[in-house]
Amino acid sequence: MDVISVIRTKRDRGELTGEQIDWVIDAYTRGEVAHEQMSSLAMAIFLNGMNRTEIARWTAAMIASGERMDFSALTRPTTDKHSTGGVGDKITLPLAPLVAACGAAVPQLSGRGLGHTGGTLDKLESLPGWRAHLSNTEMLDVLRSAGAVICAAGDGLAPADKKLYALRDVTGTVESIPLIASSIMSKKIAEGTGSLVLDVKVGSGAFMKNLDDARELAATMVELGTDHGVRTTALLTDMATPLGRTVGNALEVRESVEVLAGGGPADVVELTLALAREMLDAAGLKDTDPAKALADGTAMDHWRRMITAQGGDPDAPLPVARGQHVITAPSSGVLTTLDAYAIGLAAWRLGAGRARKEDPVQAGAGVELHAKPGDAVVAGQPLLTLHTDTPEKIPYAVEALEGGVVVGAAGAGFAASPVVLERIG
Amino acid sequence: MDVISVIRTKRDRGELTGEQIDWVIDAYTRGEVAHEQMSSLAMAIFLNGMNRTEIARWTAAMIASGERMDFSALTRPTTDKHSTGGVGDKITLPLAPLVAACGAAVPQLSGRGLGHTGGTLDKLESLPGWRAHLSNTEMLDVLRSAGAVICAAGDGLAPADKKLYALRDVTGTVESIPLIASSIMSKKIAEGTGSLVLDVKVGSGAFMKNLDDARELAATMVELGTDHGVRTTALLTDMATPLGRTVGNALEVRESVEVLAGGGPADVVELTLALAREMLDAAGLKDTDPAKALADGTAMDHWRRMITAQGGDPDAPLPVARGQHVITAPSSGVLTTLDAYAIGLAAWRLGAGRARKEDPVQAGAGVELHAKPGDAVVAGQPLLTLHTDTPEKIPYAVEALEGGVVVGAAGAGFAASPVVLERIG
Repeated sequence: MDVISVIRTKRDRGELTGEQIDWVIDAYTRGEVAHEQMSSLAMAIFLNGMNRTEIARWTAAMIASGERMDFSALTRPTTDKHSTGGVGDKITLPLAPLVAACGAAVPQLSGRGLGHTGGTLDKLESLPGWRAHLSNTEMLDVLRSAGAVICAAGDGLAPADKKLYALRDVTGTVESIPLIASSIMSKKIAEGTGSLVLDVKVGSGAFMKNLDDARELAATMVELGTDHGVRTTALLTDMATPLGRTVGNALEVRESVEVLAGGGPADVVELTLALAREMLDAAGLKDTDPAKALADGTAMDHWRRMITAQGGDPDAPLPVARGQHVITAPSSGVLTTLDAYAIGLAAWRLGAGRARKEDPVQAGAGVELHAKPGDAVVAGQPLLTLHTDTPEKIPYAVEALEGGVVVGAAGAGFAASPVVLERIG
Repeated sequence: MDVISVIRTKRDRGELTGEQIDWVIDAYTRGEVAHEQMSSLAMAIFLNGMNRTEIARWTAAMIASGERMDFSALTRPTTDKHSTGGVGDKITLPLAPLVAACGAAVPQLSGRGLGHTGGTLDKLESLPGWRAHLSNTEMLDVLRSAGAVICAAGDGLAPADKKLYALRDVTGTVESIPLIASSIMSKKIAEGTGSLVLDVKVGSGAFMKNLDDARELAATMVELGTDHGVRTTALLTDMATPLGRTVGNALEVRESVEVLAGGGPADVVELTLALAREMLDAAGLKDTDPAKALADGTAMDHWRRMITAQGGDPDAPLPVARGQHVITAPSSGVLTTLDAYAIGLAAWRLGAGRARKEDPVQAGAGVELHAKPGDAVVAGQPLLTLHTDTPEKIPYAVEALEGGVVVGAAGAGFAASPVVLERIG
């Protein structure tokens, strides 16, 4: 087997054999295939695609590159959720303890933000003392005591994907359905969850800008999960506008706690409950009512146990940014556009996200939304508050918002979108 | 400027701007753009192409990455030839001294073989003492004293191309017309020749397997040369079967000396004279007759001066391989197929070529052809003699020949091809 013949096969629109895929993933993990060879292959895959058979084998090879966790010792059924990434998408924070409160075990391995999308671990790290990195034993202990754990994936899980993901990030080969699907599913299957619900985002703030691409990605991932014995379903959900009323690390933790306390924005509550019902259904716990667990405080109890078990103080005050800047409505009328990508980019520039993997994020930075699309607004009323520790970046954030926040005349046309667009599974 | 936006532009079928091209070539040469980023871009170019404007800028940027030689101090007009590489293509050896004998100066920077195609420097190194590596001053001295010099390109010439060529070789991105054209022409333009004749090979033994691709490559290179003030023409020539009756380093030197002595195979003589006439025409010396210089010994005189000036002994016996193996005709009839790729692969496996850049070649290894397509043969007569210092490789060479050497019944159909197929310029 040699890597050039593998690259040429895909370059010339051929189908990779199972042996070629197994070999190239293993040889890349071991360092026998060089980065410049794998990136050339990744670009050929980006442009010429992979069929279902190839994607399945590619995913299996990445799982086989490391360990596969085993939660069979737990008495509760395991279930997990994965979002393809959006703006203001803090759903994991209330969802994991909520589903735990309803009787499932939730082993949630999460990531960090990159670009304009936020990361669950960055958000939780705004809680003083909270630790993202746990050993496998610690992870199991938190899962037993709190019913849910949110932490970083260990180095032993799908190391081929870790290496390939970092490579794709610097070689312009990220937005490929076969490569995204195999990357997500190799991690989630190796994680050992019994069932999985995918939240596939669609719209300006998501990787998938249109419904057709999102459907294809969701169907590919559902099939991969099912083939590996993981009960998998997917919801396609709207990411044309941010979720909830906050974008940024500590800001989103605050909003998540409001949801766990029985309040919070309607769209965040709706999506949290929809995903909770999918997860409980997949875990065989369909008779439990997650709305009740939000209302009666048991979800909040699980949140407090989970945060405490990972070294965090759920009662500590959340960090606040040093500087604020309010953007007001230029005229009276209806807020017709609040673009997810523009808001995400602004939050990123304010310091909520990072340009490179090794950069720190600001806990307090981000954007508060005082109105949502469809709301009537009056000239001069606050629309957004920008938060940052680096006020010199505010003009760049304002620039990012250009064209992304639009007030139309009273009665102006506005295309309302439901939170959940479709279900696949 | 950042490399990911450059990669994404080409990946998404856009046109690269001049600024993007200048920046990425310079940044890659300096090491700011990593190999894995350049290989991803190279694959995107391979699959999505470059238009004439992009190719011209890419070539100019590679020339600008190093020095450009200057032969304006010479009293003779400079002219050069470049072949895209074939099997048994020893034409440079008789051609350079022949054109020098007719009054031009020939600064021939040559390369080594890789894969199944031979390299001019490897062939000449079978002459004891001959040196391929000369300083710029030495090169000019040989050019003054012998009228022609054949040597390796210095490190200062188009370093961006050197780096990119080595990268393409290991990342499956070689056979791309924009990348081949810009690679060849950046070296040849930086070399400083006043005029250039391209020998674009077509057929199984060439990179371009069909006439359309060869035409496009030739037209692209002719335009690049012309734009940079180098008078450039191209001949498309047949590479379905090897040139002459020898393939391999010392074997081809022997045949070249036969041509310089006024003999040699008809196809080698024909192509040598056709290219000589093109070069002399381009150099403004169209009244000279190269056939006369072959017949009267002046071409041989220039050969001897050139070899001697580079440390070689034109009278030393040529190396002979330790082992031989004769392949005979299985039946009587007509030799209908003698496939260039099969013969080139066999010669490579016998030790005439190298698998990696750093491997040595065997001076004596190769294949002698006792019949050419269209020749009548008798069962049991020798068709080929394989030469090698490593007789254990003979079975692999024989395997390479399978299907490539075909004897048909007497009167069997045989598609004869002229040596020169087309002229572009």
